[in-house]
Amino acid sequence: MAGNSFGQLFRVTTFGESHGIGVGVVIDGCPAGLPIDIALIQQDLDRRRPGQSAITTQRQEKDRVEIVSGVYENKSTGAPICAWIKSEDQRPQDYEEIKKEFRPSHADFTYQAKYGHRDPRGGGRSSARETAARVMAGSIAKMLLARQGVQIGAFVSQVGPIRMKALPENADLSLTESNLIRCPEPETAQKMLELIEQIRDAGDTIGGVVTGLIKNCPVGLGEPVFDRLHADLGKAMLSINAVKGFDYGSGFEGIGMKGSEHNDEFVEKAGKISTKTNYSGGIQGGISNGMNIYFRVAFKPVATLLKNHVGRHDPCVLPRAVPIVEAMAALVLAEHALRQKINT
Amino acid sequence: MAGNSFGQLFRVTTFGESHGIGVGVVIDGCPAGLPIDIALIQQDLDRRRPGQSAITTQRQEKDRVEIVSGVYENKSTGAPICAWIKSEDQRPQDYEEIKKEFRPSHADFTYQAKYGHRDPRGGGRSSARETAARVMAGSIAKMLLARQGVQIGAFVSQVGPIRMKALPENADLSLTESNLIRCPEPETAQKMLELIEQIRDAGDTIGGVVTGLIKNCPVGLGEPVFDRLHADLGKAMLSINAVKGFDYGSGFEGIGMKGSEHNDEFVEKAGKISTKTNYSGGIQGGISNGMNIYFRVAFKPVATLLKNHVGRHDPCVLPRAVPIVEAMAALVLAEHALRQKINT
Amino acid sequence: MAGNSFGQLFRVTTFGESHGIGVGVVIDGCPAGLPIDIALIQQDLDRRRPGQSAITTQRQEKDRVEIVSGVYENKSTGAPICAWIKSEDQRPQDYEEIKKEFRPSHADFTYQAKYGHRDPRGGGRSSARETAARVMAGSIAKMLLARQGVQIGAFVSQVGPIRMKALPENADLSLTESNLIRCPEPETAQKMLELIEQIRDAGDTIGGVVTGLIKNCPVGLGEPVFDRLHADLGKAMLSINAVKGFDYGSGFEGIGMKGSEHNDEFVEKAGKISTKTNYSGGIQGGISNGMNIYFRVAFKPVATLLKNHVGRHDPCVLPRAVPIVEAMAALVLAEHALRQKINT
Amino acid sequence: MAGNSFGQLFRVTTFGESHGIGVGVVIDGCPAGLPIDIALIQQDLDRRRPGQSAITTQRQEKDRVEIVSGVYENKSTGAPICAWIKSEDQRPQDYEEIKKEFRPSHADFTYQAKYGHRDPRGGGRSSARETAARVMAGSIAKMLLARQGVQIGAFVSQVGPIRMKALPENADLSLTESNLIRCPEPETAQKMLELIEQIRDAGDTIGGVVTGLIKNCPVGLGEPVFDRLHADLGKAMLSINAVKGFDYGSGFEGIGMKGSEHNDEFVEKAGKISTKTNYSGGIQGGISNGMNIYFRVAFKPVATLLKNHVGRHDPCVLPRAVPIVEAMAALVLAEHALRQKINT
Repeated sequence: MAGNSFGQLFRVTTFGESHGIGVGVVIDGCPAGLPIDIALIQQDLDRRRPGQSAITTQRQEKDRVEIVSGVYENKSTGAPICAWIKSEDQRPQDYEEIKKEFRPSHADFTYQAKYGHRDPRGGGRSSARETAARVMAGSIAKMLLARQGVQIGAFVSQVGPIRMKALPENADLSLTESNLIRCPEPETAQKMLELIEQIRDAGDTIGGVVTGLIKNCPVGLGEPVFDRLHADLGKAMLSINAVKGFDYGSGFEGIGMKGSEHNDEFVEKAGKISTKTNYSGGIQGGISNGMNIYFRVAFKPVATLLKNHVGRHDPCVLPRAVPIVEAMAALVLAEHALRQKINT
Repeated sequence: MAGNSFGQLFRVTTFGESHGIGVGVVIDGCPAGLPIDIALIQQDLDRRRPGQSAITTQRQEKDRVEIVSGVYENKSTGAPICAWIKSEDQRPQDYEEIKKEFRPSHADFTYQAKYGHRDPRGGGRSSARETAARVMAGSIAKMLLARQGVQIGAFVSQVGPIRMKALPENADLSLTESNLIRCPEPETAQKMLELIEQIRDAGDTIGGVVTGLIKNCPVGLGEPVFDRLHADLGKAMLSINAVKGFDYGSGFEGIGMKGSEHNDEFVEKAGKISTKTNYSGGIQGGISNGMNIYFRVAFKPVATLLKNHVGRHDPCVLPRAVPIVEAMAALVLAEHALRQKINT
Repeated sequence: MAGNSFGQLFRVTTFGESHGIGVGVVIDGCPAGLPIDIALIQQDLDRRRPGQSAITTQRQEKDRVEIVSGVYENKSTGAPICAWIKSEDQRPQDYEEIKKEFRPSHADFTYQAKYGHRDPRGGGRSSARETAARVMAGSIAKMLLARQGVQIGAFVSQVGPIRMKALPENADLSLTESNLIRCPEPETAQKMLELIEQIRDAGDTIGGVVTGLIKNCPVGLGEPVFDRLHADLGKAMLSINAVKGFDYGSGFEGIGMKGSEHNDEFVEKAGKISTKTNYSGGIQGGISNGMNIYFRVAFKPVATLLKNHVGRHDPCVLPRAVPIVEAMAALVLAEHALRQKINT
Repeated sequence: MAGNSFGQLFRVTTFGESHGIGVGVVIDGCPAGLPIDIALIQQDLDRRRPGQSAITTQRQEKDRVEIVSGVYENKSTGAPICAWIKSEDQRPQDYEEIKKEFRPSHADFTYQAKYGHRDPRGGGRSSARETAARVMAGSIAKMLLARQGVQIGAFVSQVGPIRMKALPENADLSLTESNLIRCPEPETAQKMLELIEQIRDAGDTIGGVVTGLIKNCPVGLGEPVFDRLHADLGKAMLSINAVKGFDYGSGFEGIGMKGSEHNDEFVEKAGKISTKTNYSGGIQGGISNGMNIYFRVAFKPVATLLKNHVGRHDPCVLPRAVPIVEAMAALVLAEHALRQKINT
């Protein structure tokens, strides 16, 4: 109940601390016979890695994935898949002073209060480094989902006050990696970049929104009561460091609408049922309806300030959060895709 | 994995359909020896019940709670507590026509697609009637939390464009029940009421925000990785009908702030550590820090329109959602209060 | 974690005390669209019921099953199925004196020590009455398994020193119900009956063995490490009142064999692989191999003696335990049949 | 649901294949602040290791435990503890021929049928090597239990027809490690050793019984319905390779007793309640009563024969099974000790 596992059927357990020996994940429940492409896992890890550019943390790590178990001749065997990355950049001395104080808006105080003692090196489990384990698992979940044609994407849609113009549903996912910000609107990305550079120069940080977009999701994923698809997506996103909010479909903005405007009318084309509008965000009654699923994840400005502390942190975590949002979305979808196999 | 249970240690399973024999809940894991006050359960049920006023559904139900098991001489025995309410208002004939069509923005289509067949009476499990089971369980969770002094409150803070002026943290919970809207600012409540009456007269519906406020939460509740306290609160809230979004602390509005503004500095007064500001919303690194916990829950305008369908629905579900938000918050807090007993 | 649930995918939660309002079960995870035959549930309940004959408890209960939820037009809907039986024979006064003392080899002492207080009426949750809930759930599990052709049987194979002659694998399940003892060898049954009558006349009790036999189990059920099929069967059986031991295949008697004798050689006939002998009991490496599964469940002589106490108990619980063993076996097989749907 | 985890609160997940990179375990839920003595883990691993003597497998492995996470300054932090051993003796070529055939009474056939493809190297997950992961976790569980004074022991009580004379409850655990067999009766151990040597010379194998003995268990561990303490112990033991049966207290031998003989009468001495006899095996109604807990675990003769196959196996696995039985018992007790903290 210590909460280091996520999912039931596609069950992921992460372990390892920042600045410890390494960080890893065990996936229990990956179906047997799935082709595992290690290069794809590495690619997602590289997207998450610090030190990719001038706007992200200057910590240089190789983050080489190693598969410890569960894969034979490049296919899953049904046994637990363990994957991990060893740490190469252990600098605990940097953190010696942090041991004695509670940094504002960090987990130092609550960890100390909860456990009585704590591992102060790099924030231990509260460090973003733990998310590398999620990315490895999410990458394998994506492979499972790709067999059904499901596509999982995420992108930066807002930094501070600067927002994308396009509706999230219409974003062109092929442009996400075309810039450092991972915003699929190049001109907006440029403005975001300028803002982040200003913020960095002022020794400050800024927040924003990552939007998730799931295309080609089959109808019927999600459970009707507690494990609604969007409730599980919400929990997944809110478990990411620095996330303060989640909404899907019309979300917080739907508050201002009237019911008569908000209804998504069903239409039938060539035997396939869809809806005219998609305020529902692809989920009705907690269950996917076949339309695109889209949701927003709000990130606060991260707390550590360059001017105050020696830790190495980003002025804006958003670009690196994109593969993490994708990973968590993939874990939720993989879980529910497996569940749906036993519902009838 | 069908998702009709919530929680692990304080584990709640709901059953029953709208317009079936009854709706109930089994709580497995309520500690033994807890005094159970049935009158308090009934009181929470009465707050959720339709037909309380001109602005809520005109379905008259008594909703009498009956304790089936797990309580002896008014104390929990450690055995599973089953509580239920019988249905007295079974009018399946009203729904006969719904059987054949898919109502817009309802779960009819997704249920049919998921399960192959469905119980069309009153929406079956997708009906808000299922939430009566949550309210009963939440009421018992509140009794457990009250022993530790934890207070769980919720109120309507926004209807359409009309918002409360006070900061959520400063809301006076004793005023919540002073008006039909359950908004603790009487003059704002009056405006909300006028808007809802307009909307009802137009045969339409409107959404809004319920804010949750938890006072006197002990330090240390929540787990650092996946089961962060706010992630579990988020899932809990997103599992309520018509909810489209959740945020806590500075939430979506924190996006516009800079890190230097957003930091909650620690201060020590008389040996007790607190923070000067509370943008963290009482939770840091996923763990409660002893400050007030507050969060927003966004409700869409409900889909069924009086002008189109025979079902009996509210122009605004917000006031009736208040006890449900409280119940779900209580379930999350009870779960984590029990977990914290085994963390050291 | 209070242990009133069994299974994960086909998840059963029981509630209710002996001499309380009623005893019931919630099944979460029964696939949608399964035809539910209430008459079959009632039939299994009748087999478990006390008062069937001179050799069982003289407590007369009707034990009428009522389906509260999850079934519509005689088919499961995918929603939780709640079934229960109301108590008609509440005689708490009989148990008033038990409130103060600890009966030998009963749960009175341990319950009091564990929970601080307890419901003394009829043993509360420790009463065999709780097993009625399991029988209802097991009956539905049998319906699910029958779709795949799996047959679940159990019978009394030993009472005190009197044992069946036939190998358990070769038992003729169609004879089980031909006598009061539920032993499919009529002449052995007669001897068992005589022994039980002697024991009853002496005011004493006696133990024995119920053998479980599962025919036509598909290959591949069970998980290789902790959730081996026989480990889950073992737990299921050991959770039944008065059970002291479990073995399968060659079991405790295989201890005396050498490896060279114990090997089950594979043979192929008409493309189907089977084994020449079946010391493995139909399970290898924790996974079913398509041969008959058979196992033994040891019941102690029950503790309450007619001469000492007012409670109404059986001289030999074995015949009534038969449907309970079947029910628990069905729950395990249903669980693993669902799991196998997601392993590849 | 793939069954590579055991326990809920003290949750253990194992990973790794025989002849893969390594074998490890993640423990999620170990309370913070527990002193972790790595030397004790290594000591238990050494007891399990092959190649200890002439009567066990001649596979030489060092099996050095490495703690990957969750421990800081020799104390648990509350984060997941990952421990593993790297493989040093990878000889997959030995197993090349096994790839094509199904060894009798092995898991080859069932794995192939279940998963479609499999890792044939050393039996993959069905290998006894997986149990090294359990031993590491069990060792930490023992440290947790030792804080409460609970002592977990196991010993070989029977090999083929040769049985210990002493009652299991009275075994002197301090003698267990005094001989290669791990039987605390030296003269019986000598006879067992002679038998095993005969069996080995004949190229055959033999089974037997390991008895578990838990001293100083607090009253109140175990849950009354499905998760009875003995049911969880039974599942734990039945999940060990080559185990065919489990009983506790009077067990299968209690079948021949009458209820009047079998009752354990309560006595009170100096305010402490105990029972005169202990046929209950320290557990009543599924809950520990403070008396010694004892149980038997039946091991079949292992299947691989030296004369037929190249694999390297023991003529008798019993001595090496002793630390595994202890480990699994410790996991069950640790789980229930944590659960009991939340029952009142």
